[in-house]
Amino acid sequence: MIISEWLHRVRDSRPLVHNMTNLVVNNIVANALLALGASPVMAYANEEVGDMAAMAGALALNMGTLNPSLVSAMQVAGQSAQQAGVPIVFDPVGVGATKYRTQTANAITSQLQLTVLRGNAGEIGVMVDSGGRVSGVDSQGAEEGLPYAMKQYAMDHHVVVVATGETDFVTDGETIWKLQNGHPLLATVTGSGCSLTGIIGAFLAVVDDLQNFEKCAKAVIAAITCVNVAAEQAATVAKGPGTFQAAWLDALYHLSDRQVDHQAIISVLDMKL
Amino acid sequence: MIISEWLHRVRDSRPLVHNMTNLVVNNIVANALLALGASPVMAYANEEVGDMAAMAGALALNMGTLNPSLVSAMQVAGQSAQQAGVPIVFDPVGVGATKYRTQTANAITSQLQLTVLRGNAGEIGVMVDSGGRVSGVDSQGAEEGLPYAMKQYAMDHHVVVVATGETDFVTDGETIWKLQNGHPLLATVTGSGCSLTGIIGAFLAVVDDLQNFEKCAKAVIAAITCVNVAAEQAATVAKGPGTFQAAWLDALYHLSDRQVDHQAIISVLDMKL
Amino acid sequence: MIISEWLHRVRDSRPLVHNMTNLVVNNIVANALLALGASPVMAYANEEVGDMAAMAGALALNMGTLNPSLVSAMQVAGQSAQQAGVPIVFDPVGVGATKYRTQTANAITSQLQLTVLRGNAGEIGVMVDSGGRVSGVDSQGAEEGLPYAMKQYAMDHHVVVVATGETDFVTDGETIWKLQNGHPLLATVTGSGCSLTGIIGAFLAVVDDLQNFEKCAKAVIAAITCVNVAAEQAATVAKGPGTFQAAWLDALYHLSDRQVDHQAIISVLDMKL
Repeated sequence: MIISEWLHRVRDSRPLVHNMTNLVVNNIVANALLALGASPVMAYANEEVGDMAAMAGALALNMGTLNPSLVSAMQVAGQSAQQAGVPIVFDPVGVGATKYRTQTANAITSQLQLTVLRGNAGEIGVMVDSGGRVSGVDSQGAEEGLPYAMKQYAMDHHVVVVATGETDFVTDGETIWKLQNGHPLLATVTGSGCSLTGIIGAFLAVVDDLQNFEKCAKAVIAAITCVNVAAEQAATVAKGPGTFQAAWLDALYHLSDRQVDHQAIISVLDMKL
Repeated sequence: MIISEWLHRVRDSRPLVHNMTNLVVNNIVANALLALGASPVMAYANEEVGDMAAMAGALALNMGTLNPSLVSAMQVAGQSAQQAGVPIVFDPVGVGATKYRTQTANAITSQLQLTVLRGNAGEIGVMVDSGGRVSGVDSQGAEEGLPYAMKQYAMDHHVVVVATGETDFVTDGETIWKLQNGHPLLATVTGSGCSLTGIIGAFLAVVDDLQNFEKCAKAVIAAITCVNVAAEQAATVAKGPGTFQAAWLDALYHLSDRQVDHQAIISVLDMKL
Repeated sequence: MIISEWLHRVRDSRPLVHNMTNLVVNNIVANALLALGASPVMAYANEEVGDMAAMAGALALNMGTLNPSLVSAMQVAGQSAQQAGVPIVFDPVGVGATKYRTQTANAITSQLQLTVLRGNAGEIGVMVDSGGRVSGVDSQGAEEGLPYAMKQYAMDHHVVVVATGETDFVTDGETIWKLQNGHPLLATVTGSGCSLTGIIGAFLAVVDDLQNFEKCAKAVIAAITCVNVAAEQAATVAKGPGTFQAAWLDALYHLSDRQVDHQAIISVLDMKL
């Protein structure tokens, strides 16, 4: 299935994505999902997250501004999603920065069966324990070791793993894809990564067989490519980070088949494992 | 009083609107109120909401991301507003989606004397129990039954009821008004409805006799018309949802007498009750 | 050191600013810091704020939407920052509006050794108890008494005090500086003051001797000037508050040496104390 077909599927079915994201980005995540053609909902209370997650097309968890009651609600929502067969994408924001974040990320990945784990190269390096080849949030030199550590982790944990940065890597535990769309201005706007996490949720919601990891990985690749091609489009009209953010939402809204299919730069990384 | 006179009153008196709204839209609600010429404040703690609500021109409650301590603080704020004669507008976001939202909306409407109840057609359909003619959040076919169920509810509960959508309905329990301004891009930006709730608060704050329901309804009609005429203006320059949001704030800031008075499309719905 | 040198220092070292700010402005504060070239992080949980504050270049506290657990976490973060020699800037949003805000502002200023206290003229008037010459949030007539009360407070409490408004005042307890850049559209966008608080944090993070109050004051003056000169630039292209906000972020991103050094309007107020 080519990328535009995934995009059509999202726009046609307008999936409900239940986001439990952070205080900084709630607004931009909702607007990015709306612009793309999905239906965002944010719900955080223990009293309702189980109900909401079970009826959603996907659950997107993000620990950017975590606290104990949020973490507990994420677990309630996650258990409910799992029982209902709703895919879960998890974004371990800032893992490694504080002990609490690392403990929480470990608790969530060990207690829930995720469909996708997504972070920047630094975060994913911490999660997959790539032998210290990645430090901080810097994706420099990531190709040397990270994608292979990701692949091992994906195989061991039955999860699609995504590391985003100047180059994005996606693996289902068998293949490693390398994606090279995007624009540096994306990194100057808070919430572009968190929005991608929500948008990955929207694409997972239209996967017909969630047990097929390759299919899930391809939905994820479509999601990333849409976000990044929209960024390339936005950069042609933006005058800086402020106008870029608005133009990026405009571009998500107007993304054409031609754009996403013809501008996509996707390759399979040589298997060195 | 024509619409521009209501708008002048808001801009001249710059009423303080105490918003207890959701985590997704705090920023856009504040910016919309500022752009229009009102003075927003957000306060959520039990320790201060009573004080804040009592000194405000209006209290705007929105349960978009509710939790038990927020609900409890809303009740404290609401009781305080009521004692001080401060009008309350309530936005039952997502009522019907989860049991917790439905219980909360019922608790708030039964414990507080609201001035205005505002939601989209689906939410208001749930609130006024319009005999199942409205399902979900879809306003299709709403005219068949919803406005009349709203009128009955308004009469029974002494509250102005507002359902927004492609067409907006407002009723004071005697008359049903039908408003037909606005633009589809409004629905592509999160928080446009929540911002309207805050702006309705600003217009209620300048009503001189809150016991006069017809007057309150007319203030509400002025608020909706300002928001929707600004959207029409914004759509003439926007290239998509991102630039639309910025242009809508610009348009709220520059709204002229001529625009709001000449572009308004307001009619009285035939009384079939 | 001229203003552009401060700006270069921020951009070169990309300091981590730990913000504990309010629910309305998290997003714009993060975007303003990113646009300027700093690295924002938001963290609120008692479980991690100590770790985060200790590793940050500055801690920015803002009580815009306070509650008891946030206040407690601010104190934990503040103690940790202090022990680690990390400068603290505090923004007492809405102090004087409710008893709870006043109590909280007093608790924070008495328990933590701040580097900078920043608010609008009304808030700073309440904090420094300027003999009732300032009421509400109106900066009219501020020059008559406020700057001198600020200077006394700065001397007594060993803190740089900043009151922003149409004219901004900064004092280290010895000198009072008067800053006259900026644009009225800044006041039509929520979070411009809160963003300045975060940006002051970024400039404090690059002060080499935090015990030197004059140096701290000059870093603060550089921060305010950058924010205000960017606003002047943005106003030349904005069509209202919505496009102004985007243009302001663009302008922060592109601020040139020439702009900040040549457009700055800074004077020393005559010492009448």
